[in-house]
Amino acid sequence: MTDDETAIRALVATWMKASEAGDIDTVLDLMTDDAVFMTPGREPFGKAEFRAGSESMKGMTMQGRAEIRELQVLGGWAFIRNHIEMTMTPPGMTRAGYTMTLLRKESDGRWRLARDANLLTPKS
Amino acid sequence: MTDDETAIRALVATWMKASEAGDIDTVLDLMTDDAVFMTPGREPFGKAEFRAGSESMKGMTMQGRAEIRELQVLGGWAFIRNHIEMTMTPPGMTRAGYTMTLLRKESDGRWRLARDANLLTPKS
Repeated sequence: MTDDETAIRALVATWMKASEAGDIDTVLDLMTDDAVFMTPGREPFGKAEFRAGSESMKGMTMQGRAEIRELQVLGGWAFIRNHIEMTMTPPGMTRAGYTMTLLRKESDGRWRLARDANLLTPKS
Repeated sequence: MTDDETAIRALVATWMKASEAGDIDTVLDLMTDDAVFMTPGREPFGKAEFRAGSESMKGMTMQGRAEIRELQVLGGWAFIRNHIEMTMTPPGMTRAGYTMTLLRKESDGRWRLARDANLLTPKS
């Protein structure tokens, strides 16, 4: 595994762990300032809206699991396809499915999430 | 606009036009052999399943409109974020929303769709 692949896998693991811990600042530091998030049924949104959404969920606990199904480094960019399952408590709702994510290596040498398409749906 | 950007915009236009015309062979030639399609609530699928799905919709007419909201060329790969609205007749159902798509420039010099995350939802 190349250093870039190792760094990207570490990013995904840190993202999940920080999300579970409700550590919003760490998660925000893992994305580029121009990050764009796409989910079904709403307009794409950026880092500020991501922060606001995370802060509005402060009373909830998240437990998640991410499994990288594909990772390709394309020079200064990379993409991953993840399978994610996450449960929010309360209300105890589980969502599962795939994401396709673009990452960018920034001038400080760190990979950060830059574009994310999230296809998770409620799990019955 | 660079030649690559022009070629990618032409690919999107040809894809929509061929889809409207029910010209499956042209659409299949616009994707790589290892193309992966991701939609909410199902497993990712490839070119063979795309073909089967298209052939099962042969009695329907599709009318669509794609508007590229972002296009970035990353060397031999590129990504686009599209806003798409499409109506299938029958039954006259409209779906709208965003896609995030990765394209790859192949050895014949042509760009083809390689990965696609489709976030369209029924339009009310």
